[in-house]
Amino acid sequence: MLNLGVIGCGSIGRDHVERLTTTVAGGRVAGVFDVVPEACRKAVADFGLDAEIFASAEAMIDSPKIDALVVCSKNDVHLAPLLHAIKIGKNVLTEKPLTTSAAESRQVVEAELAVGRRFVQVGFNRRFDRGYLQLKAIADSGQIGALLLANCRHYNAAPATSYYRTDDVILDTFIHEIDVMHWLFGENYASIEMKLGRRNSLNPAPDLDEPQLAIIELASGALITVEININCQYGYDIQCRLVGERGIASLPDVATPEVRLDGRIYHAIDPSWTSRFVDAYNSEFLAFIHATVDKTPLAGPSAWDGYVASIAGEAAVTSLHERRKVDIVIPDKPALYA
Amino acid sequence: MLNLGVIGCGSIGRDHVERLTTTVAGGRVAGVFDVVPEACRKAVADFGLDAEIFASAEAMIDSPKIDALVVCSKNDVHLAPLLHAIKIGKNVLTEKPLTTSAAESRQVVEAELAVGRRFVQVGFNRRFDRGYLQLKAIADSGQIGALLLANCRHYNAAPATSYYRTDDVILDTFIHEIDVMHWLFGENYASIEMKLGRRNSLNPAPDLDEPQLAIIELASGALITVEININCQYGYDIQCRLVGERGIASLPDVATPEVRLDGRIYHAIDPSWTSRFVDAYNSEFLAFIHATVDKTPLAGPSAWDGYVASIAGEAAVTSLHERRKVDIVIPDKPALYA
Amino acid sequence: MLNLGVIGCGSIGRDHVERLTTTVAGGRVAGVFDVVPEACRKAVADFGLDAEIFASAEAMIDSPKIDALVVCSKNDVHLAPLLHAIKIGKNVLTEKPLTTSAAESRQVVEAELAVGRRFVQVGFNRRFDRGYLQLKAIADSGQIGALLLANCRHYNAAPATSYYRTDDVILDTFIHEIDVMHWLFGENYASIEMKLGRRNSLNPAPDLDEPQLAIIELASGALITVEININCQYGYDIQCRLVGERGIASLPDVATPEVRLDGRIYHAIDPSWTSRFVDAYNSEFLAFIHATVDKTPLAGPSAWDGYVASIAGEAAVTSLHERRKVDIVIPDKPALYA
Amino acid sequence: MLNLGVIGCGSIGRDHVERLTTTVAGGRVAGVFDVVPEACRKAVADFGLDAEIFASAEAMIDSPKIDALVVCSKNDVHLAPLLHAIKIGKNVLTEKPLTTSAAESRQVVEAELAVGRRFVQVGFNRRFDRGYLQLKAIADSGQIGALLLANCRHYNAAPATSYYRTDDVILDTFIHEIDVMHWLFGENYASIEMKLGRRNSLNPAPDLDEPQLAIIELASGALITVEININCQYGYDIQCRLVGERGIASLPDVATPEVRLDGRIYHAIDPSWTSRFVDAYNSEFLAFIHATVDKTPLAGPSAWDGYVASIAGEAAVTSLHERRKVDIVIPDKPALYA
Repeated sequence: MLNLGVIGCGSIGRDHVERLTTTVAGGRVAGVFDVVPEACRKAVADFGLDAEIFASAEAMIDSPKIDALVVCSKNDVHLAPLLHAIKIGKNVLTEKPLTTSAAESRQVVEAELAVGRRFVQVGFNRRFDRGYLQLKAIADSGQIGALLLANCRHYNAAPATSYYRTDDVILDTFIHEIDVMHWLFGENYASIEMKLGRRNSLNPAPDLDEPQLAIIELASGALITVEININCQYGYDIQCRLVGERGIASLPDVATPEVRLDGRIYHAIDPSWTSRFVDAYNSEFLAFIHATVDKTPLAGPSAWDGYVASIAGEAAVTSLHERRKVDIVIPDKPALYA
Repeated sequence: MLNLGVIGCGSIGRDHVERLTTTVAGGRVAGVFDVVPEACRKAVADFGLDAEIFASAEAMIDSPKIDALVVCSKNDVHLAPLLHAIKIGKNVLTEKPLTTSAAESRQVVEAELAVGRRFVQVGFNRRFDRGYLQLKAIADSGQIGALLLANCRHYNAAPATSYYRTDDVILDTFIHEIDVMHWLFGENYASIEMKLGRRNSLNPAPDLDEPQLAIIELASGALITVEININCQYGYDIQCRLVGERGIASLPDVATPEVRLDGRIYHAIDPSWTSRFVDAYNSEFLAFIHATVDKTPLAGPSAWDGYVASIAGEAAVTSLHERRKVDIVIPDKPALYA
Repeated sequence: MLNLGVIGCGSIGRDHVERLTTTVAGGRVAGVFDVVPEACRKAVADFGLDAEIFASAEAMIDSPKIDALVVCSKNDVHLAPLLHAIKIGKNVLTEKPLTTSAAESRQVVEAELAVGRRFVQVGFNRRFDRGYLQLKAIADSGQIGALLLANCRHYNAAPATSYYRTDDVILDTFIHEIDVMHWLFGENYASIEMKLGRRNSLNPAPDLDEPQLAIIELASGALITVEININCQYGYDIQCRLVGERGIASLPDVATPEVRLDGRIYHAIDPSWTSRFVDAYNSEFLAFIHATVDKTPLAGPSAWDGYVASIAGEAAVTSLHERRKVDIVIPDKPALYA
Repeated sequence: MLNLGVIGCGSIGRDHVERLTTTVAGGRVAGVFDVVPEACRKAVADFGLDAEIFASAEAMIDSPKIDALVVCSKNDVHLAPLLHAIKIGKNVLTEKPLTTSAAESRQVVEAELAVGRRFVQVGFNRRFDRGYLQLKAIADSGQIGALLLANCRHYNAAPATSYYRTDDVILDTFIHEIDVMHWLFGENYASIEMKLGRRNSLNPAPDLDEPQLAIIELASGALITVEININCQYGYDIQCRLVGERGIASLPDVATPEVRLDGRIYHAIDPSWTSRFVDAYNSEFLAFIHATVDKTPLAGPSAWDGYVASIAGEAAVTSLHERRKVDIVIPDKPALYA
């Protein structure tokens, strides 16, 4: 039974605390920390945790009662606990993005390289989604040939908060496609160009420009288009289509019953990312727990993958601000991440 | 240009007059007859026909201005014009059912056998539907193996008229499945049992018991279930699924755009049989016209097929009335219909 | 952490031991028993269990180290451990069927009634499948109106063992539909008739007659048809379609990527029941564990449900042997199972 | 019965001659012309035409035996017969593209403006396809809100001829999307940028660079991406998806039977444009014939639409050659085409 310390007991932190307590085997929440102490007390009470409330992330990371960490704090305070956990030598599952800049993400990579071992698994949970895994298997099997094109859409019915801004769309939302397409293609990005389409009149946020269209070139010349639309109104809709030399493979819609009623054949769309990817979250945690307990190498997205996503995400923000295509330069991958 | 005489200018008669006038090549409406003369005058006026209004079906059949006939009169008055046309030696496309009894249908067969040539094509239009034709090709290809089971559903949103009665469901509606399954399986029926399910409280007709469930045994032992439901409310929905030893083939839904809206992924269901099978009707007429003009054998459902459907339909009515399984005995097929 | 004793460490027993050890939270395998002691040793070794190997099911049930039981032994030896666990007052999750006869299943019900509490959850795992749960919610919402008809198919690519016999098809395979349709309709069965279709020439077992077609009448007059075909060759294919007065709701196919290749648009079919229902199994165990730990009433299929399935299953076997429709008489449901 | 003169009896010319002779009502092939006289003789013989073979397109246009024209000659010789027919005052249905340059297309528009009447219907047949018409109706209904984004793909299994060159992909293939998206959006284009992706190693033509990706901006700021891939190997696959403020509408796949076989659920893809759009071709001809016979305004794509497509097509070619975004400037639409 792995004793986990959870940093950040806010919205997704609570989801993960509940998951660890009620659903997935092999781990338990043994410690919690949040900059808002009330959030810790509430999590302990709501989920009946037998867990210590720590006064700081650092104290919890240092505690002998804690075997590994889960980082669910705000994006801009991931760096310090990650570096500390690596220094102490404890595994960490951190929510995405790894950090909010390529420079910070580079520090995490450097810290792992200095020790010569991976400690960090980044919460790019799609890599544990059954559909994406099947897509990866099809692409890798060679049956559709070398990949030439891809299309994604990342549509949310509405932004998670009313304070969402244009850049957040890239670093919080589009970052998922940035990681998963890099993984599916298995090659580096060469450039990115972001375009703003016609503004949705139902988008209530003045500082939020979208839909956004990304055009990504890969090293091989393959092209990916991604539509990001977080006010699509109708549901949470994630699509991914890979076009190879001989055929196409596409992520399926979520399976829900077909209903024939009132002149229509319909099925329900998943309303939110929490339900859409609940199985992927569970698998992600099981993978992290089993690897940590068994002392086998972490299998999920690495600090390097988080770093690559940071580089590409920064290029996307630059493209959006400067309205031009921006080159993406990825350094050589260290052997640790081969 | 084939000069056609149309007997019956009521609802489906008008559809066919319009089809011959505006849509399909090779034929023209040169004569019309209806027991209600006003129906003829209205058809001529509405579709701008250059056609003679005849005083009787017989006179029209006899007229040298008429090359071939289309019978769209009520089901119970098909026999006389069919026999007369065969006697005169003119081809006839008759709406289904061939007649309303096996004994009458037998007379049509006997008349053709006496001449030694086929003159009658029965309007079982599904045999000209693209989906059914593809299903037939798949079944005949052997790829799914010998047929073991089948399921059909014949659902109408609501009955065509408020006077619909229980037996009509068999002779007007279910008769389509009786013919098309006989054709798809390519073997004779052995027995039929009709069951009445729970009555739909939205069915307004006191003399109409449905939904009905038919269980048909074929000579090989294969089993077909057919659901007939003419108050299904939601649309016109025709399904057919063939289960073979290695696989299954199913009739597709009509292709309509997929819409994602309000938490649903939906596409429209065709509301009625006229639009659902419009292409099949057009192909049925083109096949009849081309065969008649080219003096090649009629290719569609024959008088024999109509006779077989009458025998099975009568057995179904008996089963419904007597609440028991009824054997279906089909005579040997004459060489003319091989 | 609930200490579970697993009775039967054969095929599905091993699956459940693995599930409890690696996947689902809240329980651990603390004891094992099997009539083949080697099966216990192998399970302990293969899954690294910290578990006691007991000399008898009874000894394990009695042991203070064991909080609750999981019965995975052969169908015909479920009764004794169930009765003993009820006597001792420990919860039991038993694989389906509850027992192999209505008389034995009645004994389990009587034992619970004598204590006045439910201890048994039957492993009709489909009630925990997301698709079936959504179907149930749609049916219960009233949007499609009262249920009139239903269709199921239960197709396996090939039987699990080569010794499968005709009756097993009912008690091992079809028993799932018997339970789940009873649950979906929420009313009692009135009669059942089994029919044998044309034999599949690819069925290698001489004592196995199938495909089988079941026609079930419910108390309301609604009709269910079920096709059971365990040599369908192409995959594991479970379908369920509910027809109401206003519309239809159908269980979805498993979501797998769409591939366009070689003139076809295809997606993969799940090959087996273990993968098809893996999530349902996990949810079933989580529900049992949480209810047992929280001392709340068991939520899944009860001994009563298992008894009803036994009655209907026996009627189905009689129908198959005697080639006639057999009435199903379900006693009044005791208040304990309301 | 409309007497039609067909200019060009090569591949698609023969298709249309056959269509007019065997399938669609209201017109007949009364005259033919081809620069290769043998093509005329072959068409007359193969389809049993009662038609005059003319020595020149001009002579046929002038002939009192000919009521209207169908232009199926090579793209670069459309202009002269179009101008002559307009001068003579006869309607013309011309295959797409209208001409091969914006300057030539402008001449056709000017000729019609000079007379003050439309004579030309351009063979952008997709506007008569059921799926596109339904898509148009959904977009125009407002149910999905203002259009923000769109995606198309135009995939051919292989190029029609081995001599296909890069620019042909735009003027022969992509021109269909250029027209149909202009029609669906109902607004003018603002710019276009063509990108070349990774070359398909299965593309045998050295002078054919593809797949191509087009990014089109509309006057409103809406963005369209179009993938053109004429070596996709797996079939003929036309997709179109409109993203509005509230929802999405997509062109359906062609309906073909679902087959479950060998672990897959599949349906066939249409192999070629001739079968995919056969109904659209028939409807296009019926619309042209009925409007011409009834002397009502031509309803299909006009010379103006053909001109707009020429302007956008030229911009696309420029973009491809110069590797940059190219503005599209569409003049004000004359009242004749409102």
